[in-house]
Amino acid sequence: MTARRPSSPAGSREFELRQKRLLESLAAQNLDALIVSAAANIRYLLGFTGSAGIAVIGADAAVLFTDPRYAAQAAEQAACRVRVVRRLIENGLIPAIARGGWKRIGFEPARLSFAVFEQLRGSLPRGIRLMPAPGLVEELREVKSPSEIDRIRRAAATALEAYARVSSEIRPGLRESDVAAELDYQMRRLGADGPAFDTIVASGQRSAWPHADASSKPIAAGEPILIDLGARQEGYTSDLTRMVVLGRPGRRLAALHRAVLEAQMAALETVREGVAASVVDRAARRVLARHGLERHFVHSTGHGLGLEIHELPRLGTRESKRLRAGMVITIEPGVYLPGLGGVRIEDTVVVTAGGAEVLTNSSKQLLVL
Amino acid sequence: MTARRPSSPAGSREFELRQKRLLESLAAQNLDALIVSAAANIRYLLGFTGSAGIAVIGADAAVLFTDPRYAAQAAEQAACRVRVVRRLIENGLIPAIARGGWKRIGFEPARLSFAVFEQLRGSLPRGIRLMPAPGLVEELREVKSPSEIDRIRRAAATALEAYARVSSEIRPGLRESDVAAELDYQMRRLGADGPAFDTIVASGQRSAWPHADASSKPIAAGEPILIDLGARQEGYTSDLTRMVVLGRPGRRLAALHRAVLEAQMAALETVREGVAASVVDRAARRVLARHGLERHFVHSTGHGLGLEIHELPRLGTRESKRLRAGMVITIEPGVYLPGLGGVRIEDTVVVTAGGAEVLTNSSKQLLVL
Repeated sequence: MTARRPSSPAGSREFELRQKRLLESLAAQNLDALIVSAAANIRYLLGFTGSAGIAVIGADAAVLFTDPRYAAQAAEQAACRVRVVRRLIENGLIPAIARGGWKRIGFEPARLSFAVFEQLRGSLPRGIRLMPAPGLVEELREVKSPSEIDRIRRAAATALEAYARVSSEIRPGLRESDVAAELDYQMRRLGADGPAFDTIVASGQRSAWPHADASSKPIAAGEPILIDLGARQEGYTSDLTRMVVLGRPGRRLAALHRAVLEAQMAALETVREGVAASVVDRAARRVLARHGLERHFVHSTGHGLGLEIHELPRLGTRESKRLRAGMVITIEPGVYLPGLGGVRIEDTVVVTAGGAEVLTNSSKQLLVL
Repeated sequence: MTARRPSSPAGSREFELRQKRLLESLAAQNLDALIVSAAANIRYLLGFTGSAGIAVIGADAAVLFTDPRYAAQAAEQAACRVRVVRRLIENGLIPAIARGGWKRIGFEPARLSFAVFEQLRGSLPRGIRLMPAPGLVEELREVKSPSEIDRIRRAAATALEAYARVSSEIRPGLRESDVAAELDYQMRRLGADGPAFDTIVASGQRSAWPHADASSKPIAAGEPILIDLGARQEGYTSDLTRMVVLGRPGRRLAALHRAVLEAQMAALETVREGVAASVVDRAARRVLARHGLERHFVHSTGHGLGLEIHELPRLGTRESKRLRAGMVITIEPGVYLPGLGGVRIEDTVVVTAGGAEVLTNSSKQLLVL
């Protein structure tokens, strides 16, 4: 920031629109206001990126409470009124709600701690009802706007380019953590604010841990090397997994890779507006079953992403929700054989009327170095 | 991991000791067991580092529930029995508690969502009481063991060395995010798993945002440059803030820096076993008041750190808790003048019987390049 931005932040129209859509959701549930406690939801609705904040949004008022550390930042960023207080709940939220004239106030049950709920319940005047209102903002966030998709597209391009720069330089003896450090560094250099999650570089047996991050283990020839990375850029995330091997892969690894790639392509082909999420998951699962690998596929086929790396929708066996155009999801089947190793292949894609637009478009073949 | 570690993990004695101390805390509160939901508390008590898990620990049993993605990792890491289930709460925790024979079960009210609490409350058999038991594990974690202090020492050395390597290379026109990327990269190269928090490089007016992270703003000569970084290494964190300026600092910046340094040294000098946390905070505040800067010091003087970057104790104006030997805390007064800029100076220190052992021992002068 070389100059102070105007007090109405860039994109404030988008925040107004989002708040308006939230008010429609509230009205549909006969709620007067929503207490917004999840940081990503605050960012989505109000534009504030600080880590300490809680907001209440009703038809006649939207207020963000934050502490003095974030006063200047909130004044600059927030697309609503800001109140700076120490002890946000007791000095900010509770008095504001008591004065607000609201009767039925929703809250985010999965995003509010029991302790804060109890504090609210114990302090609010009689006549005010706190109602669990799960997922209201998360559901708004599920379908991305064109400008959100553009940001995810840039975050995906960053992850892809970092992977391209680093993967070809992997040599025996490098530690997993060295490779992860290079990936994170290149993502930063390419414009990311940081990795979207702890970058995974898992080699040999460690690739059989689906969420292994990166250890000090040296990488050896012939091992499966699973690389799962994503960028966090302009607030938005991306997610990408590819497999590498140094030297000729064994037949077992090559066969596992072919099976997972076949499953990933089968799942991708089912993606389009109107298809149930479970259909995508089952497409991958069916291919792996044919290869006798289904029981080693221990997670769902994918998940939405956006401001957070895990968002709605889930692409699991029992998810009947239908995909909508503008959803951004991962397609990432994997198999994990304890003691042997694992293989996962993952793309970030946009759901469209005609199919899946792949944002991480690059070779998915086993990279043999 | 080049070879499988034995099923009883290295350091399992330390985990046993911690669980034993927790059981003593539970007994003192007449609780039969504790539901442990905070990831850092699970790691502290059980050694499991995965991100999906919940545990219940009682006198006769300690069980960790995790999902299939973490099966292999939990089997290797956890210093307790592991049950792998899909839907941890309904398929794991609730049946285990129902069978456990416990009557009074504590939970972590600030670390458990309202939604999970309600799920438990709605499903547990009558006769089982869920009791809020705030901070039990956090209080055990407050005083560090020698091996924990060693890890924080290494995390501090990493942050210091990364700062030394990068700070001297700052030039006008570099973006804040370039400097942050280099700091993160060097920490990784030096053995960190990653930064302990989003590295802050805040220059010019942005330094008046206490939690500014790093933007694409180019750094210019004469501006205050606030650099706040920490490493996460072997699970433990460190925290360090220093100030840089390119070219001769203005008199205002130099004076602010002198005042904050005087406040930081005054606070450091009060640190020793037995001193109330508020005494440390007030020592800093008194110096800044003498310089007419107290109202610009908008946060507390410091905080504990360890597995998390913010732990107990807090070093605030109203904290009567007495420091104990083995606590690891930050001492970090700062002043923030909106539109002008900010100055903060921070060390990570161990409380000892004789005073403060500074783990981030290096020059605190304004670095003039």
